[in-house]
Amino acid sequence: MDSGSQQDFATRLAAVAAETDALLERLLGDQALPGEIVRPQRLLAAMRHAVLGGGKRLRPFLLVETATLFGASRDGALLTGAALECLHCYSLVHDDLPAMDDDDLRRGLPTVHKAFDQATAILAGDALLTLAFDCVARADVHPDADVRIALVMALARAAGLGGMAGGQMLDLAAEGRFDRKRILPENEIATMQAMKTGGLIGFACRAGAILGQADAAARVAIDRYGAAVGQAYQIADDLLDVEGDSATLGKTAGKDAAAGKATLVAALGAASARARLDALIGQADVALAPFGAKADILRAAARFIAQRQR
Amino acid sequence: MDSGSQQDFATRLAAVAAETDALLERLLGDQALPGEIVRPQRLLAAMRHAVLGGGKRLRPFLLVETATLFGASRDGALLTGAALECLHCYSLVHDDLPAMDDDDLRRGLPTVHKAFDQATAILAGDALLTLAFDCVARADVHPDADVRIALVMALARAAGLGGMAGGQMLDLAAEGRFDRKRILPENEIATMQAMKTGGLIGFACRAGAILGQADAAARVAIDRYGAAVGQAYQIADDLLDVEGDSATLGKTAGKDAAAGKATLVAALGAASARARLDALIGQADVALAPFGAKADILRAAARFIAQRQR
Repeated sequence: MDSGSQQDFATRLAAVAAETDALLERLLGDQALPGEIVRPQRLLAAMRHAVLGGGKRLRPFLLVETATLFGASRDGALLTGAALECLHCYSLVHDDLPAMDDDDLRRGLPTVHKAFDQATAILAGDALLTLAFDCVARADVHPDADVRIALVMALARAAGLGGMAGGQMLDLAAEGRFDRKRILPENEIATMQAMKTGGLIGFACRAGAILGQADAAARVAIDRYGAAVGQAYQIADDLLDVEGDSATLGKTAGKDAAAGKATLVAALGAASARARLDALIGQADVALAPFGAKADILRAAARFIAQRQR
Repeated sequence: MDSGSQQDFATRLAAVAAETDALLERLLGDQALPGEIVRPQRLLAAMRHAVLGGGKRLRPFLLVETATLFGASRDGALLTGAALECLHCYSLVHDDLPAMDDDDLRRGLPTVHKAFDQATAILAGDALLTLAFDCVARADVHPDADVRIALVMALARAAGLGGMAGGQMLDLAAEGRFDRKRILPENEIATMQAMKTGGLIGFACRAGAILGQADAAARVAIDRYGAAVGQAYQIADDLLDVEGDSATLGKTAGKDAAAGKATLVAALGAASARARLDALIGQADVALAPFGAKADILRAAARFIAQRQR
C-alpha cells in the first residue's frame, strides 16, 4: 500500500464518517415517525449522546466500501451503516453499565449512565437496538424487500444470543463473574471474540455483499475478509488497552488487563499478537484476491485496522 | 357474550398458549442456527427463565385470532406471536431491573436478575429483543418478504423510542426519577400508556391484519380495536395492582401505587376507571362491527382483558 492509497483511504474514511454522522443526526431528530407516538426528550438526548459523540465509523465504512465493490447504491449502504452504528453504540452503552464492565469514559466523554443515569442508559440501548432494525427495514435501504429481510436476519444473528450478546456473556463468564475465573484456551478466546466483536464487523462486510446481490463465491470471499479483519480489530484493540493511555483512547486504558479479560494478547504476549496481526492482514489480502484492484480500499482498511493507534 | 362463547374463548386462549409455549421452547433450544456461533448456556438459561415461566400469552392470542379473522396462516401467526412474546418478555426483564422498577417477583418466580444476576438479565433482555426480529424475518412467517418487512417495521415502531421504550421513559420521569415528581394530566397518562403497553397490544392486532393482507378500511378498524383493548388492558392491570394480592398476581402488588406511578386509576379513582373499562369494551365492539360474527372471539377477548383477575 503506497502513501497515495493511504491518503485515498483517509479521505474515503472521513467521507463515510461525515455522511454517517449527518444521517444519524437526521435519524435521531425529535419528530415522531409514522407508528411512533412521541419521542421523549430525555431518551432521545441519551441516544444522541451515545451515537453522536464521534467515532471513526469503521463499521459503516466497511459496509459502504463493500457495497461499492459489489455495485450497490451508496445511499442504501449508508443507511444500513447508520443502522449498524446504532446497534454498535447500543452494545457500548450496555457494556459500560456498572453491572457489566462499569466504565465511566467513552470516546473522551462520560458514558451514558454517567451523563444520565442507569435506567436511561438501559432504555437508550434498547431503543438504539430497536432503531437499527427499523432503519434496515426501510425501503430506502434497497427496493427489494427480500434484500432487506436478508439484512434483518443477518443483523439479528450477528447481534444476538449466538453472536454479540452471547460473546459478551462468555467474556463476563471468563472473568469469573459467575463462578471461578477460568484461563480460556486460545480457541475459546477466538470463539468469544468472533461473537463479541467479529459479529458486527462480519455483518458490515456481508451486508455490502447482500446489498450488491453478490454471487455465492464472492460472499464466501468477503466473509473470509470480514473474519480476518474482525480478528485483527480485536487484537489491535487489546494491544491498545495494554499499551495506550486513557487520554488518547478516550476510554479507560488498562481496564481489560486489570479485569483479567480473556484476550489473545494476554494469552500469546504482545509480540506474538503482533505477528498474528500481520498474518491476518495476509489472510485479508488472500480473500480479496479475486476482486483485483477494485478492492484496494478494503486492503487499506485491513492495514488501518491492524495498525490503528486509537 | 353467552357462556358458550366464553367457554370457546377459554379453549382457544389455552390452545394458542400451548402452541406458543411449544414454539418458544423450540426457538430457545441449544442448537446454534446458521449465522450463529454458539449459544452460551447461561444466557440461554436466563432467556428461557424469562420466556418459559408461564403467562397467558395474550398478545400471541390477539395476533393469531386477528390473523385468523383475515384468513392468514396460523403457523405464520404463531411464529410472529412467539416473536412478540420474546419482545414482551425482554421488556419485563429490563423493567424489573434494580435501576428500573426493582422487582423481585414475576409470574410467581424470581425475576431474571434475582435468579441470575444483573449483567445476565441485561444481556438476556437484549438477546430476546434481537430474537424477536430474527423470528419475524423468517420465511415461515409469510412467503412474501414485503409482508415480513412490514411486520419488522411495525414491531420496531411499537417497541422503540416512540413506542414502548419511550413509554417506560415517560413513566419513570413521571415518578420523579430525574426531576421533581409531576402529577400527569389525564391526557399525558393516556399517551404514556399508549406507548408503554398499548404499543405491543396494538402491534398484535395490526400484525394479524398485515399477515392477512387486509384492506385499508379493515386495518383502520382493527387498529381502533387494538387501541381500545390496549387501554382496557392497562386500566385492568392498574386496578389489579391496587386491589390484587401478590400471591394471585405472581408479582408484587401495590408496587405501582407505592412508587407513585401515574395511572388512570390513581387519577380517576377505581369507580370511574371501571366505567372507563366498560366504555372501552363498547369501543372495541363498535370497531369490530364490520366483521360480524367472525369477530366474536375478539369481542370475548376484549371482555376477558377488561375483567381479568390476574
